[in-house]
Formats: sequence, C-alpha cells, structure tokens
Amino acid sequence: MSLSWTATATDGAARAGVLQTAHGAVETPVFMPVGTAGTVKAMTADAVRSTGARLILGNTYHLMLRPGAERVAALGGLHRMMDWPAPILTDSGGFQVMSLAGLRKLDADGVTFRSHIDGTPYRLTPESSVDIQHKLDATITMVLDECTPHPATEEEARRSMEMSMRWAARSRTAFVPRPGYGLFGIVQGSVYRDLRLASVAALTAIGFEGYAVGGLAVGEGQETMFEVLDYTAPALPADRPRYLMGVGTPDDLLGAVARGIDMFDCVMPTRAGRTARAFTSRGVFNLRNARFADDPRPLDPDCGCPLCTRHARAYLHHLFRCEEMLGPMLLTWHNIQYYQDLMRGMRKAILAGGLAAHAQAVRARWAAGDDPR
Amino acid sequence: MSLSWTATATDGAARAGVLQTAHGAVETPVFMPVGTAGTVKAMTADAVRSTGARLILGNTYHLMLRPGAERVAALGGLHRMMDWPAPILTDSGGFQVMSLAGLRKLDADGVTFRSHIDGTPYRLTPESSVDIQHKLDATITMVLDECTPHPATEEEARRSMEMSMRWAARSRTAFVPRPGYGLFGIVQGSVYRDLRLASVAALTAIGFEGYAVGGLAVGEGQETMFEVLDYTAPALPADRPRYLMGVGTPDDLLGAVARGIDMFDCVMPTRAGRTARAFTSRGVFNLRNARFADDPRPLDPDCGCPLCTRHARAYLHHLFRCEEMLGPMLLTWHNIQYYQDLMRGMRKAILAGGLAAHAQAVRARWAAGDDPR
Repeated sequence: MSLSWTATATDGAARAGVLQTAHGAVETPVFMPVGTAGTVKAMTADAVRSTGARLILGNTYHLMLRPGAERVAALGGLHRMMDWPAPILTDSGGFQVMSLAGLRKLDADGVTFRSHIDGTPYRLTPESSVDIQHKLDATITMVLDECTPHPATEEEARRSMEMSMRWAARSRTAFVPRPGYGLFGIVQGSVYRDLRLASVAALTAIGFEGYAVGGLAVGEGQETMFEVLDYTAPALPADRPRYLMGVGTPDDLLGAVARGIDMFDCVMPTRAGRTARAFTSRGVFNLRNARFADDPRPLDPDCGCPLCTRHARAYLHHLFRCEEMLGPMLLTWHNIQYYQDLMRGMRKAILAGGLAAHAQAVRARWAAGDDPR
Repeated sequence: MSLSWTATATDGAARAGVLQTAHGAVETPVFMPVGTAGTVKAMTADAVRSTGARLILGNTYHLMLRPGAERVAALGGLHRMMDWPAPILTDSGGFQVMSLAGLRKLDADGVTFRSHIDGTPYRLTPESSVDIQHKLDATITMVLDECTPHPATEEEARRSMEMSMRWAARSRTAFVPRPGYGLFGIVQGSVYRDLRLASVAALTAIGFEGYAVGGLAVGEGQETMFEVLDYTAPALPADRPRYLMGVGTPDDLLGAVARGIDMFDCVMPTRAGRTARAFTSRGVFNLRNARFADDPRPLDPDCGCPLCTRHARAYLHHLFRCEEMLGPMLLTWHNIQYYQDLMRGMRKAILAGGLAAHAQAVRARWAAGDDPR
C-alpha cells in the first residue's frame, strides 16, 4: 500500500491528521526543514530530530549535481547518507533548474540546462526526475512541473499548466509504487480560478497520494495567495494530504493551515538563522542589532531549544559579531524549533477545535513585540 | 584551597593524575580544545562535552576585544556565557597581542597595542591581564609573559625571560586566590638550558599552582622541543601540573607526555576540522581528496563520534565539496574526539605502566596508513 493520510480532526477548513509512510508516521499540519544538498544547513541530523521534525525536504536539482543520484544510491539512499531514517520528500528539480541553472531550454518533453557549478549539461524529463528521486529513495516523490512565473497572462498560465498536467500523467506512469512511498501531483494555474480548478480536475483524474499547490509565494503577495487557496484547497480530495510548496513566513503558515493546507517547506527559518534573523513568539529580531549586546535574557522565553535555555541574547549577538559558526548553528536550530513549535501549537488547537482563537493569540503576541527590560 | 593536582601513577617520566578545581575534576594528561572567542569553533558545548573533554581554553586577547571582559562578567562569567560549567583555562593575552594586534609596543611595564579588528588602543600589564582573567572567571589564570621569538640569541632570550619573570612575580601579587582556582607560571628561556633552568628556579621561588612551558612550537622543530622538555620538565616541582602551551600534533603529544607533560592546548584539531583535514588512527587524511568521493566506509573505524558511527567518508567529502557547514561541524567534532581518545589512551597506558609500548603501537598504526579497500 502506498503512503496514506488520515484526518484525526477538522476545525473549519483546517485539518489535523497523520501521514503513514515506509519511514514512519508524521503528524500534520507539518513543516519540513529544507535539507538542500543532503544536509539541513548548519544542523546535525540529531539537532533536526530534537526539534520534533519528522519529515524533511531534499532538493533533487542540488543532489543530482552533487554528489549525484547514483552515488547517493550507492551509499544506501538519502536517508542512510544523511542519517535521517524518517521520511524525506524530494522536489522534482524543476523549480531550481529554472531559478539556478544556466542556459536552460524548456521544451514539451522536458528541460535541458547546464549546472550552475561547472557548466555540465543535464536533461530533466518527467521520467528522469521520477527516476532520480527513486534513486535518492525519496519517501514522497514530486512530479516534474513548470512553476508558472508571476505575473503571467491567463493564456500563458493555461499553456504552462496544461504542459504540467501532461508531465504529471507521465510522472505517474514512470513512478514505481512501493509500500509506504507516494507520488504527489502539483496544482498550477497562477492566480486564475478556472485554471486552478481545471488543474485540480486533471490531477485528481490521474490520481496521486497527495496534492501540492505550486506557483505561489512567487511575488503575488499573501492576500492573493490566500485567495487562491480559498478556492483551490476545498476542490482537492478530502482524504489526501495537501502541500503548499515553498511557503513561508509564520503568518503564512497560520493562514494556510486555516485554509486546509497540511504540509509546508521553506528555506526561510534556516536561511534567516545564518543571517542573524530570529523567529520568536515576540516577533522577528535581528540579532546583529546593538540593543542585544548586553541583553542577558533568553532569545525567546517560550522556547525550549538549547540556545534559549542555555545562552543569553548577548552571547548570540557576540557570536554573530565575531562571525563564529556557532551563531548560525544555534540560531538555525532555534528557528527550526520555532517553526516546529508553531506547527505543534496549530495541531493541538485543531484537535481542541480552537484554531482561530489560537492563531489570533499567536499574532497578538507577535504584534506586542519584545518584553520590556 | 587553590586548585591542586595529584599524581595517580607514573610511568618513566610520564604521569597520570587528577586536577581538582572549583569547576570539577580533570584527569591528566589532558588536551584542552581551544575556545577562542567564547566558543570552540563549529561545536556546541554539548558536542565538546560528548568527546569527554572536561577542560577548555579561552583566549583573553579575543575576549577582551569582543565581547569585552566586563560584558562577560555581567553575563555571569565565561562558564555561564558559553554553557561550560567545567573548568576553563585562559591564556594571558600576551601571545596573541604579539601575533595579531597592530602597532604593538612592549615596555618594561606591559604592552600597548591596537585591536586588529577596529584599531581601538588597549594596554595589557601583568596586573590588568590577571584582572581580565578574573572577570572572565577563569579557573586557571596564566601569567602575562613574553613568548620569546625563535630564533633568539642567548642574550635576547635572557633579557626576555628575565622580564617575564618580573611579570610573573607581579601577576602572582595581582592574582586574587579563590578556592579551586589557580595561577600558572610560564617557563621561558628559548632553547638555552641555563636560561630554562634559571626560569624554573625563578618561578618556583615565587610559587604557582602549576607550571607551563612557553616559547616552544614556534619553529624550533620537534627534536629541539623535546630536548628542551628533557631538561626542563624534570626540574619542575613533581607535585604540580605541567602545561606545554600551544602543542601540538598527535605525535607531539605522545612525545611530550612521555617527557612528563600533563596539559596541552592547540588549535590544530579544530582548524584542521574546518579545512577537511582529519586526524585518525590511520594517520592524517584530506577529505577533499577525490579518492573519498565514493568511499562508503567510516572515516575512522576505531572512533565512536557521530561522524564515524553514522556517515560515510563519501558524505563528508560531499559536504566539503559543497561547502556545507556540516562538513566543518562533523569533522571538528571528530578531530576533538580523536584528540580526547588519544589522551585517554595515554592515561590508561600510564596507569598500566605501558606508555612506551602504547605509543609505539599508535605510531605504527599511523605509519601503516589507511586500510585497503
């Protein structure tokens, strides 16, 4: 049996549930830390685990370039290579080909490009992407699609979406079913309701273990993104997990879970952790700010991570000022802990039927800002 | 009572013992990981602890510049700031003033210099160095001295050593005794036997809780260093710990322990860890070497660190190739583990009366090199 998802509670459009996979169970709604090139940047696998994360994302584009899918397979797959026995979702590689690779050429059959590292030519098709993800041993494989750029005219968006739907069908055929593994389709259609619904219809006709909403968080703004979710999410099958790709800020997560999304990934908490930006229950802080130089308090008094339970803000400020690696290490850890705690809080609230009040309280605490000293 | 050291066994000139301090006991011979600016680079305090390290070194020069001694004191001292409740030894700052600072001017009373970071002027005297180390809450304070450059004529070495001895007396006067804390004197005298013995006599006349041998590993070569230890170590009080500053390679440690040294510090394992150089029971490897790209074996089959028990050499090679922070993190951890294991092996051998045979076996394993695949 392929991987499955079961709802344990709903609260308005929001859902709490459990994803059952070959690599263990994952409670949803869930945030996936991004493990770009076979490592969640600046964190050991143990540190990632300690935050409660049970599902991470790997980037097919980065991994196919280095160390290469065959090499990962020879090392026993991504789980074994990274020391991450829990589930892993890999993207198709398409998004990063379009944003990172050189000399890329899209045609009806796939995309040809050159490595942004050394110029080596590669070709990615729906079939080869699925095959690479199989070699990586991804628990969840994503279909190859085109992430429609924003803005796009309705005609551009239609052509792009229809190509992605043809690729989705080819991906489904190429995917080798294995117990507890699954393939997710990706809804495209830009900001056009009819296109989004046509995309949902095309994907559900094919049938996938889960459905992602792609082509959002590409510059359209939160309001438009939420509008798209308002009509897209309810159209998706109620018994399959829904994944909003590449999203987002803590506030995005609150809004998207309320609209029925179950899964997220974003580089934001890890990238912010390397640049001294902290996500906290009191809002976002820049730890390079001189006001932290003598601040003996924990970064976030509501957080149980090693940084918040053992060190002063002044120490973290010092580490970033000295460009010590421990600064990014501890703050990335904290930010991932914060995102996991945020998701855990939402799951709990959905189970108790109080997500709206919970989200309001979380937002009010952000707005109130830092505690007075 | 000040900190004390008790021998538990001797084996030739080598000694095993226990250092009792306000921050706990430390078994010797011991290697101190270097926590330059309030962090052992690329390691969490938990990771350092997990290697068995129980004593680390902090650099007064770096800490007085950033975050500043007053600030460390306000945060409860270095132990609390770093989350390292175990003992900490701080150097006097003198060595790094001479190697890093700008526009430095040495006079009979101390040294004036400018920060290498922003040009701020500072002055360090025997009294101010001891005071700064007090503010940092160093378990072991080092006297301010001049690390005599190599080569030096006998006359240069004598003048330098005699000034250091006057500074040692002033440091002793300035030091505030506290239970379980201590002050170490530093033997100078370059490569001249008479000067080294005169320095030992001057220091023992003052009286210190421990004695360091300074001015070595500055380009004189291992053979000369060992010669100096051959006549210096036996002249030091048998009931006090002996610390060879800034040393060294694993082979240096084997040779110096055999000559009666109890304590060491060196940036080598941490610095090497950031540049892909691995210390192993099979010798030193450069993990950037292409021969590791497909090597599924653990880095060192005799090591119990997270890198060696959970990952392939190929993964570590990949991490360094991609400049992923996890490469330096895992390899620094391994190198510190290797150094701690090396010291533990020597302690065990001394207790069993077999240090010479043990050292020979360790060197033979290095010489035999990597296992055939």
